[in-house]
Amino acid sequence: MQITNPGSLIPDPGSQPATGAINALAFDAYGTLFDVFSVTSLCEQMFPGNGTTLATMWRAKQLQYTLLRSMMDRYKDFWQVTQDGLVYAARALKLDLDVGKRTRLMDAYMTLATFPDVKPGLQQLKAMGLRLAVLSNGEPRMLESAARTAGIADLLDAVISVDEIQVFKPSPRVYELAATHLHVSRGSIGFVTSNNWDAQGAVSAGLTTFWIQRAAAEPAEELGYPPAHVVRLLTDLPNIIRSF
Amino acid sequence: MQITNPGSLIPDPGSQPATGAINALAFDAYGTLFDVFSVTSLCEQMFPGNGTTLATMWRAKQLQYTLLRSMMDRYKDFWQVTQDGLVYAARALKLDLDVGKRTRLMDAYMTLATFPDVKPGLQQLKAMGLRLAVLSNGEPRMLESAARTAGIADLLDAVISVDEIQVFKPSPRVYELAATHLHVSRGSIGFVTSNNWDAQGAVSAGLTTFWIQRAAAEPAEELGYPPAHVVRLLTDLPNIIRSF
Repeated sequence: MQITNPGSLIPDPGSQPATGAINALAFDAYGTLFDVFSVTSLCEQMFPGNGTTLATMWRAKQLQYTLLRSMMDRYKDFWQVTQDGLVYAARALKLDLDVGKRTRLMDAYMTLATFPDVKPGLQQLKAMGLRLAVLSNGEPRMLESAARTAGIADLLDAVISVDEIQVFKPSPRVYELAATHLHVSRGSIGFVTSNNWDAQGAVSAGLTTFWIQRAAAEPAEELGYPPAHVVRLLTDLPNIIRSF
Repeated sequence: MQITNPGSLIPDPGSQPATGAINALAFDAYGTLFDVFSVTSLCEQMFPGNGTTLATMWRAKQLQYTLLRSMMDRYKDFWQVTQDGLVYAARALKLDLDVGKRTRLMDAYMTLATFPDVKPGLQQLKAMGLRLAVLSNGEPRMLESAARTAGIADLLDAVISVDEIQVFKPSPRVYELAATHLHVSRGSIGFVTSNNWDAQGAVSAGLTTFWIQRAAAEPAEELGYPPAHVVRLLTDLPNIIRSF
C-alpha cells in the first residue's frame, strides 16, 4: 500500500508514485459503473408503453431528492430517496405501483448491469498499481450488492458512501472523502464520473476529474467548472493516466 | 405597522393580531405570482415546434442549477442561473440561440405575466391588514421589475431575495429571512407557494405553509414534509386565514 501525507502534495519519502501525478482513482457508481437504465426493460414489462418515461422520471426525481434533502438538511439514505423517486414518478404518470411491483423494481437497483467497458477498464487500471475506489451517493449495502453482482468487488480498495457524512453530491465534503479513505493527497486522486454535474462538483472541490462521455451528444452543464479531461470509456483511462 | 418580537410567539403588548395566528404572508415569486411559462409563446415564435420543450427544460435547468450551485457553495444570482439554464436547454435541443434571441428571452423574464388570481388575491389580503412580502430565489432587480410590471409592487411591504445570504431555497436559512424582514415571529407568518418542493422546505423550516395547487393533477413531492393547507387560488386564502 502506498501512502502520501493527506493534504500535502509532497509524497512520503518511502512512497513511489505509481503513475506520475495520479496514484488513485475514485469512481462514481450510478450512471458511471452501473447502468441505472438497465431497469428500463423491467419498467416496460410492468407498464407497457411507459417503461422509458418511468425510468427517466424515476432517475431525475431520485437525483432531485438528493439535492432537495441535502439543502433542507433532512438526509435520508439513497435507498429511501430512490424509492421515494419511484413512488413519485409512478403517481405522476398515473401508474398503479403496488407493493409487489415497487419491491421488484427496488430489488433491480441492487443488481444493476455494468457498462461493458467497466470491468476491463478497472482491471487494466488495477494492473497499473493504482488504488481504486467507488465514491457514491449510494447507500453502502446497495453499493456492495451492485459491485458483487458486477464481479468488480475484488478490484476495489474502498467503497466510499456519502452515508457517513449525511449529505449528497455535489457538496465539497463528499469529494474530500476520497483522500481520507484512500490515504493519498487530494492532488494525486483522479475522480471519474459520467454525470457532468458530478464532474463539475469534483472540479470545484479541487480534484483532477475525468468525464466519461459515453453518448457524444450529451451536452456539458453550464456550471462554470468544466472537467479538463473528457473520455468516452473507462478503457480510455490507462493511456491518459500514464501521460500524467 | 405591527410588530411582534422576532423569535417569540408572544405578541408585543401594543400589537393587535390582524387575523388570529397569521399576521403576515410571504409569497414565492416564480410559478406562484409570476407565470414562468408565459415565455413559452416567445420560445415558440423563435423556435417553431420547440417552444414548450424549450420553456420546460429551461425552467427545470434553472431550478437544478440553483440546487447544484448551493450544494457546491458556488452561488451565482438568479439572473445568471436563469441564463445558464437557457443556454444549456438550447444546446441540448440543438437550437441556435444567438445573442439577440438570448437577450430577448432573458428580457421576457423581467416582465413575466401574473396569474389572474394574483392581484385580486393580494388586494383582498392587504385589505385584511396583513403584511405581505415576496420571498424568492430571484435576483432583486428581477423581482422589482416583475412586480412593477404586474402592478402589485404597491401591495408588497417587502421584497425579500435570497441574494443577501447567497444560498437558494429550500435551505432553512431562506425561510428564516421572512421573519427577520417582516419583523414578526416565525409562528405568525404564512408562506405561500405553488412549488410543492418549496412548500415542503418551508414546512421543514417551521413555517405555516399554503400550497397553491392551480393544476389539480399536480402530485405532491415525496419529501416527508407535506403542507397542511392546500388551496387552488390566491383568492381562496382570505377565508382560510380568517379561520385561523
